[in-house]
Amino acid sequence: MLSRCCPAPGPETRDTGPGQRSREPDTRSGREAAGRANPSARGRDHPLPRGQSQSSPGRLRRRGPAPGALAGVERDEVTAQGRPAGFRAWLRGHVTLRPPPSRAPMAAVRALMAPRLAAASALAPLPGNTRMPSPRAALHGSAPRPGPKVALVLSGCGVYDGTELHEASAILVHLSRGGAEVQIFAPDVPQMHVIDHTKGQPAESETRNVLTESARIARGKITDLARLSAANHDAAIFPGGFGAAKNLSTFAVDGKDCKVNKDVERVLKEFHEAGKPIGLCCIAPVLAARVLRGVEVTVGHEQEEGGKWPYAGTAEAIKALGAKHCVKGVTEAHVDQKNKVVTTPAFMCETALHHIHDGIGAMVKKVLELTRK
Amino acid sequence: MLSRCCPAPGPETRDTGPGQRSREPDTRSGREAAGRANPSARGRDHPLPRGQSQSSPGRLRRRGPAPGALAGVERDEVTAQGRPAGFRAWLRGHVTLRPPPSRAPMAAVRALMAPRLAAASALAPLPGNTRMPSPRAALHGSAPRPGPKVALVLSGCGVYDGTELHEASAILVHLSRGGAEVQIFAPDVPQMHVIDHTKGQPAESETRNVLTESARIARGKITDLARLSAANHDAAIFPGGFGAAKNLSTFAVDGKDCKVNKDVERVLKEFHEAGKPIGLCCIAPVLAARVLRGVEVTVGHEQEEGGKWPYAGTAEAIKALGAKHCVKGVTEAHVDQKNKVVTTPAFMCETALHHIHDGIGAMVKKVLELTRK
Repeated sequence: MLSRCCPAPGPETRDTGPGQRSREPDTRSGREAAGRANPSARGRDHPLPRGQSQSSPGRLRRRGPAPGALAGVERDEVTAQGRPAGFRAWLRGHVTLRPPPSRAPMAAVRALMAPRLAAASALAPLPGNTRMPSPRAALHGSAPRPGPKVALVLSGCGVYDGTELHEASAILVHLSRGGAEVQIFAPDVPQMHVIDHTKGQPAESETRNVLTESARIARGKITDLARLSAANHDAAIFPGGFGAAKNLSTFAVDGKDCKVNKDVERVLKEFHEAGKPIGLCCIAPVLAARVLRGVEVTVGHEQEEGGKWPYAGTAEAIKALGAKHCVKGVTEAHVDQKNKVVTTPAFMCETALHHIHDGIGAMVKKVLELTRK
Repeated sequence: MLSRCCPAPGPETRDTGPGQRSREPDTRSGREAAGRANPSARGRDHPLPRGQSQSSPGRLRRRGPAPGALAGVERDEVTAQGRPAGFRAWLRGHVTLRPPPSRAPMAAVRALMAPRLAAASALAPLPGNTRMPSPRAALHGSAPRPGPKVALVLSGCGVYDGTELHEASAILVHLSRGGAEVQIFAPDVPQMHVIDHTKGQPAESETRNVLTESARIARGKITDLARLSAANHDAAIFPGGFGAAKNLSTFAVDGKDCKVNKDVERVLKEFHEAGKPIGLCCIAPVLAARVLRGVEVTVGHEQEEGGKWPYAGTAEAIKALGAKHCVKGVTEAHVDQKNKVVTTPAFMCETALHHIHDGIGAMVKKVLELTRK
């Protein structure tokens, strides 16, 4: 049977303002969405009479109800409180590499892009600043929520020179499902190098910045790691990828004699001393092993087992760093109850992706449980 | 209660060779892993007597059982069948930006890196080729499996100038759980531009290649889209992100008059004409709307609803392209049964990440179901 195909017949126009998004998914189609009996029951939305919008600074205000059509976009008025340059720059970033051939396509582009201006207020740089500190917010609707406040620390974007992005994404999915409020951080430092991931070789002429590349995972909402304080968060999580061993530390070069980025070291010590949980996966447990003496972590099994654990030798390096290595399977997390450090092997294991996703789910669940103790 | 911390006491050394990995997660710790009663019951592994390895081309062969210790790595012997340059280049990519200060750290690095040489055979370029066509394989253990063969088509790495990486990752997790065999593709073309994701502005001096950046999501195992033929696959899936509107088509600039990358157009027509399902999410449904006349797709709701559907205007563009737009919630997928096209709104909706993850799960499930009809 074919699905019903019809437009939604004009639901109320609502502007909930930043941080007022509902956690409830909108699974209602068409008339059902518009005609529900009790609009105020929908999360923390603030329903308004049709055509009336509750505006907030830095957002678009419409003259009349949201039209949802190409022509209607012409009526947008930017009320950006002194940031039109930022808006224009953001828009220019998407549409003006070559001029549109006619008026009609431009209208289509604006229909696609203009609504995004509302979100651009969070992206636009402040005058005189090269990077704006983000408000506590992360991926879309995960902005202010009642759950634990979790800091996610990235190291770039891509397994061979940055954060393993599937691990970061899995962490964010599980934190979202667990009701956590996430803020994403990365150090504002150059990457050790840039690896062409098609060749597994360095692109000698290229340089990239860890914070800038990490922003690809954070969808733009990212904060310099120097601003992360344990006082403002209930937990911190470090995904893996070679970035943890190249950009957050020198483990890839120096092994057990590695140095750890000073902000990473400070953050690990702050959370540990405050008795707040720390989650790490894949190769990232070497950071905890280096900074927190005698901590228990897992990087999986200690034998390669025919290629199933290709990085098994890392367990010896963990021990050489003065930590205790605990053997765990890929869908398990190890909890060091005393130190409140939770680890899972993730991509240290050669297995199907959903097992890694589930193991990270186990780690996130334990981290969130520890925030409540 | 503390978890048990002990090393695995020497399980059998197994080398299953490429494509012989088990789909079963290794959740067994320590002695349990080594002492199971029926080793042959474990997926498609080929257990061997202790210390005997079943080697395969391009992998490391050990002289004796896998030692799992720093010193043991010294005994590795590369049997790379004429590809030592590729191996060395890959290794150099990870460790030689600056020389190690002493022998001991270098041993630690080799302990971490050397096992990865086994996987490097798939990454190393063939002599004379700048890019090697990958074998059918994707993320780690998802290589040859008995399920449907699915092609995933990427457009870069990062929401504002490439593939929305959380969408791509969610697709891969759900395909993995559904038992699919995945091969990842991207066009070997320059990106429209590079967006600094911390600023939402173009990095004017930078250029990046769509295939090279997509390889960050594919963990190196990626194939030029020009080589994708519907004859070799049961389904194709296109995640969203602005890359679909900037690199796979000119929709971001030209709207309803957009052009579609010739290989993307060819692939969509090939799968459609072969009666094989096509999945698309977020903004990617505009590709199907442009190429397949009269197709039914969803990009979510048709009104912004106070910012919940910030790209709602796209529905009008879908109609202007000659397609039929169907209103759906973020956790739903729309199935055009006649054309076997499955779509879900994903990040077209401003909501928590796990709802997007679940909506993509609904899309992947429907695509896999259609491969069996």
